[in-house]
Amino acid sequence: MRVDLNADMGESFGPWKMGDDAALLETVTSANIACGAHAGDPDVMATTMGIALDKGVGIGSHPGFADIQGFGRRRIDMPLNSLQNSIRCQVGATLGMANALGAKVRHIKLHGALGNMTSEDEMMARACYEAALSAHPDAIIMVLAATAQERAARSMGARFACEIFADRAYNDDATLVDRRQPGAVIHDADLAGKRMVEMVKSQAIITDSGKRIETPIDTICCHGDTPEAVEIAASVRRTLEGEGIVVQAFEGRTA
Amino acid sequence: MRVDLNADMGESFGPWKMGDDAALLETVTSANIACGAHAGDPDVMATTMGIALDKGVGIGSHPGFADIQGFGRRRIDMPLNSLQNSIRCQVGATLGMANALGAKVRHIKLHGALGNMTSEDEMMARACYEAALSAHPDAIIMVLAATAQERAARSMGARFACEIFADRAYNDDATLVDRRQPGAVIHDADLAGKRMVEMVKSQAIITDSGKRIETPIDTICCHGDTPEAVEIAASVRRTLEGEGIVVQAFEGRTA
Amino acid sequence: MRVDLNADMGESFGPWKMGDDAALLETVTSANIACGAHAGDPDVMATTMGIALDKGVGIGSHPGFADIQGFGRRRIDMPLNSLQNSIRCQVGATLGMANALGAKVRHIKLHGALGNMTSEDEMMARACYEAALSAHPDAIIMVLAATAQERAARSMGARFACEIFADRAYNDDATLVDRRQPGAVIHDADLAGKRMVEMVKSQAIITDSGKRIETPIDTICCHGDTPEAVEIAASVRRTLEGEGIVVQAFEGRTA
Amino acid sequence: MRVDLNADMGESFGPWKMGDDAALLETVTSANIACGAHAGDPDVMATTMGIALDKGVGIGSHPGFADIQGFGRRRIDMPLNSLQNSIRCQVGATLGMANALGAKVRHIKLHGALGNMTSEDEMMARACYEAALSAHPDAIIMVLAATAQERAARSMGARFACEIFADRAYNDDATLVDRRQPGAVIHDADLAGKRMVEMVKSQAIITDSGKRIETPIDTICCHGDTPEAVEIAASVRRTLEGEGIVVQAFEGRTA
Repeated sequence: MRVDLNADMGESFGPWKMGDDAALLETVTSANIACGAHAGDPDVMATTMGIALDKGVGIGSHPGFADIQGFGRRRIDMPLNSLQNSIRCQVGATLGMANALGAKVRHIKLHGALGNMTSEDEMMARACYEAALSAHPDAIIMVLAATAQERAARSMGARFACEIFADRAYNDDATLVDRRQPGAVIHDADLAGKRMVEMVKSQAIITDSGKRIETPIDTICCHGDTPEAVEIAASVRRTLEGEGIVVQAFEGRTA
Repeated sequence: MRVDLNADMGESFGPWKMGDDAALLETVTSANIACGAHAGDPDVMATTMGIALDKGVGIGSHPGFADIQGFGRRRIDMPLNSLQNSIRCQVGATLGMANALGAKVRHIKLHGALGNMTSEDEMMARACYEAALSAHPDAIIMVLAATAQERAARSMGARFACEIFADRAYNDDATLVDRRQPGAVIHDADLAGKRMVEMVKSQAIITDSGKRIETPIDTICCHGDTPEAVEIAASVRRTLEGEGIVVQAFEGRTA
Repeated sequence: MRVDLNADMGESFGPWKMGDDAALLETVTSANIACGAHAGDPDVMATTMGIALDKGVGIGSHPGFADIQGFGRRRIDMPLNSLQNSIRCQVGATLGMANALGAKVRHIKLHGALGNMTSEDEMMARACYEAALSAHPDAIIMVLAATAQERAARSMGARFACEIFADRAYNDDATLVDRRQPGAVIHDADLAGKRMVEMVKSQAIITDSGKRIETPIDTICCHGDTPEAVEIAASVRRTLEGEGIVVQAFEGRTA
Repeated sequence: MRVDLNADMGESFGPWKMGDDAALLETVTSANIACGAHAGDPDVMATTMGIALDKGVGIGSHPGFADIQGFGRRRIDMPLNSLQNSIRCQVGATLGMANALGAKVRHIKLHGALGNMTSEDEMMARACYEAALSAHPDAIIMVLAATAQERAARSMGARFACEIFADRAYNDDATLVDRRQPGAVIHDADLAGKRMVEMVKSQAIITDSGKRIETPIDTICCHGDTPEAVEIAASVRRTLEGEGIVVQAFEGRTA
């Protein structure tokens, strides 16, 4: 039994720091690196990708809406074709940097509002994934397990990896409990670790009501931008390994 | 005897049009496509690259300073390493789009103030070219003939193509006559054509004073953003072909 | 009987031109000047505002979503409070420039997607107008006649001016016929002029089906960014004046 | 004997935090608030200005080069007229927000590379100050004491306040010791306080070599973005007050 740990990173911008990428890269096995559209800049991308390469962490391209001030968290109503072209350029930017560093872009994950919208809308998810794969055909698509993202990847015959969250409570339809609800975000590192062991062992999302949603679980998302991020990631890893679950980069699966 | 014709394009942005890319792509053999930093956006890049592919025109990546309002024409004092990372991402963006369209990026040319600065500063030129080639090792570098750009490409052992301008008068040191001087810019399409025939045949830049600066001439730059751009490009091509000079994409040379 | 003619302008950006502001400013009596968020830049703002001042044309602040590439035409889902702060800064930018030129900002009009959303949503319209007036209490609000914008201005007790379009067909609920429908956009300058005379004389929007929606008509919007823009504006003005309708800047009204 | 304490603030951007504005606003008497061009966004501006208003801290407009990624620290070679228009809009943005909050913009200070360039070039300083005052004639100009900025303000007959740095060593020509030299930046809060008492009492900059450069000292700049910023500001204030120097907002002086 094995699982990957991933985190969003490379989200600093110019003089502004976000998260502790170097510390997280000691723990995670996949790094989702911002492409400069919603966060990150070429210098940040170079630095983060360089450390990931040194540590043997899987490098991913993490495109989002082109909206720095909004950090890609604001929904923007734009034509799908235009969104596809944006994704092609963003993935391309990470390819250019990876080439320069002698690295490989292994996977692609959608960020923020783009991630949310595509977890609700299979056609939009498919359009985004087709765009990403057109720019980088070898990539593995990281999908939110049991959502429209997973359905899109399956229907395309793409190689994909199913992701759950280490620190978020789930509703019975596999969506995340609204952040404004009590208990929606898990701040207790021990609890986060135990939940992940339970879900990985049963290959199911366990919801707040106790319902089990069966799904492959290939990777666990550890947030990178909270104060307790590094601690939660380390705790999740220790707990998984203590239960004999191997933590290593995913290989991807097909439907 | 043969020569390439190139033009900067893909320089529209959002709702704003610049130049008539489709018309120019009927005439030129190489297209320098903006990467979104000084001009262009992903939709413009897709459209322009798509037409270039259809017409069999050589596709180039045309990075510049990240300064949309200034169109990459303002000198920005930034660390070389930061400039290199910017170029890696810009070249990467065109790689991503080219992959998506089934096209190849054949060459790289620096834009605007970045082009001017590197034609004066060999070390800066070399840094930019090393960055571009690190992102895309197969590219041919398009250099301003007889400037620090050419010296940089030669000293690196890179594959390069030497460029002169169809519509600009030259000083005796191979720099361009200041645009504010009378006669600095040639608006007469016939005159532009005749000058180019003379320079290509003699493989030399002929300056305002009549001096000949010997240099390989691999490609002629036709501006894309002036009212007479399409006419001048067509005239230059007709005149060259009327003199038996074959107009086709360059293959690049090494020192 | 009198009416104002307005047009959006100052929408060039950096090296990219949009519309012929100087020509339109010979005809219109109010100019809605972009604030740099969706279009315009400080140089464009200075130039356009300077000509408007010379011609005695009423100067307006024309805020939109901060989205240059999308020209403010993409709906962005952002908190109202954040939108209000953006509007305060945009209106402020025009105040700063107007002070520098010895001009006055007389009115405020919302642009693009922000205009569309607020014509559907009275609470949003009110939030935007409150923000604009908090930055510039003397301004007259230009509202789309018979929409949520007008209702918001009335309920606030603000000074406002009701606007109709010279070149757009109307549905029976006072919304504009979708641009993709035949006849939605009027390209015939004579027809545009005659329609405006009819609507102004009857102080009613006349819809495609012939329905009359009674409304004050204080100003007519002439588009500035189409090829026929200058001609339509001039024709509308001539036709109105030929019918004895005085074309001059509005004074605003209260509910 | 009295002096003002100022700090740059409102330099967070979107989700990225910089400095602890709320804490600094407990200590300083003037706040230089970023205008959104090099840092800050409308929400950050609203929050910071709101706290400054509550605390009775003097509010300043702090324009810089329009270069978010570079934080306004990269020199950009642009026409003076274009720079002036940018400053008019930036100052205007703070006017709009101040109006909305019922606050006043009391002073103007140039940021980063723009500050450095204008401390070397009196004509450039004068152009920037004329632009700022054209947008907001009542403002007091904060100048780097004994530099071209001060000379520009004096020659214009503007109202100004002379500024020195709490945590930087000085060369004999009143410029700052290069940050890369040992001792250039003072990290010891006690030392910073003692130096300021000495300089304020003698109304002179005391350089590294012990030279005294006589100058009015109206305000002391406390950096806001270093880890020890809040501590140094508090120490400087305590030390000044312990020596009987009153810490309060400047009124400005004329030549």
